[in-house]
Amino acid sequence: MAKRQIRLGAFVPGTSQHVAGWRHPDARPQDSHNLKYFIELAKTAERGLFDAYFLADVPVTVDPETTPNLGLTGGFSAGLEPVSLFSALAAVTEHIGFIATASSTYEEPYNLARKFASLDHLSEGRAAWNVVTTSGPIVAKNFGLNDAPHPKERYERADEFIQVAQKLWDTWEDDAFEYNKKTGQFFDGDKLHPPRFKGKHLAVHGGLNVARPPQGYPVIVQAGQSEDGRELAAKFAEVIFTAQQKIEDAQAFYKDVKQRLTKYGRHTDDLKIMPGVSIFVAETEEEAKAKYDELNSYIHPSLGLSLLQQLGGFTEDLSQYNLDEPLPEHIGQIENGASRNQLILEIARQNNFTIRELYQWVASARGHWTIIGTPEQVVDELQAWFENEAADGFNILPPTTPASLDDFVDLVVPELQRRDLFRTEYEGKTLRENLGLERPENQYVLARQEVKAS
Amino acid sequence: MAKRQIRLGAFVPGTSQHVAGWRHPDARPQDSHNLKYFIELAKTAERGLFDAYFLADVPVTVDPETTPNLGLTGGFSAGLEPVSLFSALAAVTEHIGFIATASSTYEEPYNLARKFASLDHLSEGRAAWNVVTTSGPIVAKNFGLNDAPHPKERYERADEFIQVAQKLWDTWEDDAFEYNKKTGQFFDGDKLHPPRFKGKHLAVHGGLNVARPPQGYPVIVQAGQSEDGRELAAKFAEVIFTAQQKIEDAQAFYKDVKQRLTKYGRHTDDLKIMPGVSIFVAETEEEAKAKYDELNSYIHPSLGLSLLQQLGGFTEDLSQYNLDEPLPEHIGQIENGASRNQLILEIARQNNFTIRELYQWVASARGHWTIIGTPEQVVDELQAWFENEAADGFNILPPTTPASLDDFVDLVVPELQRRDLFRTEYEGKTLRENLGLERPENQYVLARQEVKAS
Ligand SMILES: Cc1cc2nc3c(=O)[nH]c(=O)nc-3n(C[C@H](O)[C@H](O)[C@H](O)COP(=O)(O)O)c2cc1C
Ligand SMILES: Cc1cc2nc3c(=O)[nH]c(=O)nc-3n(C[C@H](O)[C@H](O)[C@H](O)COP(=O)(O)O)c2cc1C
Repeated sequence: MAKRQIRLGAFVPGTSQHVAGWRHPDARPQDSHNLKYFIELAKTAERGLFDAYFLADVPVTVDPETTPNLGLTGGFSAGLEPVSLFSALAAVTEHIGFIATASSTYEEPYNLARKFASLDHLSEGRAAWNVVTTSGPIVAKNFGLNDAPHPKERYERADEFIQVAQKLWDTWEDDAFEYNKKTGQFFDGDKLHPPRFKGKHLAVHGGLNVARPPQGYPVIVQAGQSEDGRELAAKFAEVIFTAQQKIEDAQAFYKDVKQRLTKYGRHTDDLKIMPGVSIFVAETEEEAKAKYDELNSYIHPSLGLSLLQQLGGFTEDLSQYNLDEPLPEHIGQIENGASRNQLILEIARQNNFTIRELYQWVASARGHWTIIGTPEQVVDELQAWFENEAADGFNILPPTTPASLDDFVDLVVPELQRRDLFRTEYEGKTLRENLGLERPENQYVLARQEVKAS
Repeated sequence: MAKRQIRLGAFVPGTSQHVAGWRHPDARPQDSHNLKYFIELAKTAERGLFDAYFLADVPVTVDPETTPNLGLTGGFSAGLEPVSLFSALAAVTEHIGFIATASSTYEEPYNLARKFASLDHLSEGRAAWNVVTTSGPIVAKNFGLNDAPHPKERYERADEFIQVAQKLWDTWEDDAFEYNKKTGQFFDGDKLHPPRFKGKHLAVHGGLNVARPPQGYPVIVQAGQSEDGRELAAKFAEVIFTAQQKIEDAQAFYKDVKQRLTKYGRHTDDLKIMPGVSIFVAETEEEAKAKYDELNSYIHPSLGLSLLQQLGGFTEDLSQYNLDEPLPEHIGQIENGASRNQLILEIARQNNFTIRELYQWVASARGHWTIIGTPEQVVDELQAWFENEAADGFNILPPTTPASLDDFVDLVVPELQRRDLFRTEYEGKTLRENLGLERPENQYVLARQEVKAS
């Protein structure tokens, strides 16, 4: 068996992960809709031998009625749709995988299964779907609803959604198509399996009009940490994107999720746990710290505060408090079932952060772990998590694009390689092969084999 | 003003337009999911200076329960999703436009507006949306419905859908984004306009999270010939894809649709009428005829018959009749409001076709006009339509891919150019510029200008 190595995702939005990252002198917010810019980013990530390029996604933008400091809230207001962008990048890259986030709450399974199957074909086996259930009323209103369905309902639908997507991808057996010019037989009708799916939330009768994806199924990624989120991950996910702050918490999460796998007849290796981590790295510790301070200095205080307000789901207006004191002892938070709200409060308490420090922290990594230091210091930390059952790999969140991605590739990757923690060339052709995940057999073929065996 | 020239769309499915086109010795059905193959096709079309690559689309595949001769029905059973494919092609082409068909009945406006806006950015202004309303119960069942909504309802929804899509594309004024690193101002909040749309069928509250497309809106294409279809086209469409057999009918259609434009304050030039035409061309007439006969010889009779059955919407089983006699005098057709059913019956009567000849005709061009001849003969016909108000251009349907596309580019294009009927280089950078269509002003900017002017 190959030795266990770190998996890496490049979580790189065009306009930076850090809320003020776009104000960095090297940042190119004006290129946020420019394919050539993303080609550069993807090629940098490919040069860094990342397993995949990862994009978050919510079908919504800022709203004048509900967004304080409207014009300051730039970074996440507009950009390219991830599956479309990755389809374009597939044409000009060779190795890197593509993890596109898409909502099981606001998409139709037939359309979603189709576009991910297409991306997998276009990239010759490099597609992954990050399944999210998408909270909040303002997204719901873009889809004719008044409010988002209850989290429980959303997770029920997500469960059905993945089931039916897998059935759709299994519509055609791998060798269904014969293309026999002599006889006129295009495919073998016995190898066509329409899903005939009727669930509580979803119904899909007919088969997918795309051949089975090269990877069988695109890799299934999941982001969501509640009880229901973990259960969904244990049942279906092959990668988890998670926000973890401390190694002990990460270990507890890791253990909890891995243990759940047995219930579904799955093995520890079938699911890679990849926390997000935001890295400020430089040749010296001082320079690294200076990079952190520089970006924080770009945060407009009103924006920092409103970001904290929103991501923490606080019910009271935070601007009434002194920025340089901690949050008041009792503070209300929306009950929307989102685990991130809880996390932000915990961080504030644990670090005894002032409100300003808390919003800087939130603005910087948006709930994810942050490391500041030299390449050796950074890799020490990553290695500790990787070797102590806290992580199978990491989603790297460069605070400012493209500078921090370049930093990671030029400074951290060589150090990881020196310690034999990371590949020096791509092992496989598909994302599954690079991640060390098996290609799933078609469920209808499996069923036939089981009938034969019994 | 520039002289009026023919517009050309390349309507080129990977597995051929003619039902047996994939059995041609040069055809590559095994590459139907292969990006490299489509890159070759797009580059051929670009070499031929086509305005756009055009792909049809229905979110459905053949079904074992309802499809006779299942394994023979290959060509349209599986392929790549058009918007994804075109996103990939955008990365490796420079001039050619992309007309992707997508259903206003089975997509969500937010998701659809987003992916077309993304394609327009990725291609730097070369995207078009062919709006179809998609008939038939088997598609509906892939989206949790028992049957398709009534045609009237579908066209009502299509009307709302285009309205709301245009509002979504107008969310951000062209110069809304400032990216001011000094002040932290990312955009001007006064230039953000969420749609707040509430119709009978659709509701979208918030703005699109994509900057305004380079073309303002992707070019709006429409395919659908009923009264409601024509009215929708007159109101919104900038290109009509239509199936016309005879110059007189095409002229009547042309006149009818162009006349409807005034009602919506639009001009004759704002809408290009582009009938489909399937062309068998060779240096001599005999060779061209031989190409036609060769492809028809590949049609499996059972398949030809079932295709005719389905596309004509006949309610009686055609296989009970003698293939070498005409259709019986009284024959039932499904009442689903589809104009194509009617057309097929008319063709049969006008040409006094036997059932076999009729299915050969249907299989060949699927309801579109067919020309067989030398480059001069082909261009004579096209010119007659173009110069006599029957067409502003044509969607070329090569019967077998890639051979007939090569034939068209190598034989017909030079003849068109020789007569000064077609460009010798691309005039513009965007699809709109090449088609001679204006870039629409943002509706919120227009409204502001009107307020100021009054
Ligand atoms: C690390 C992480 C990343 C997420 N990324 C997205 C995203 O890109 N788009 C989205 O709509 N929701 C995203 N979510 C939200 C989840 O889909 C979910 O709606 C929310 O976290 C509530 O579920 P939970 O309580 O199980 O975490 C993310 C959640 C986590 C924990
Ligand atoms: C030339 C032409 C091309 C069409 N292409 C498609 C297509 O690619 N996908 C689809 O779902 N419907 C397609 N349609 C069907 C129309 O969307 C519509 O459902 C059908 O024609 C009924 O409307 P009508 O009676 O107005 O023509 C096409 C129709 C025409 C006339």
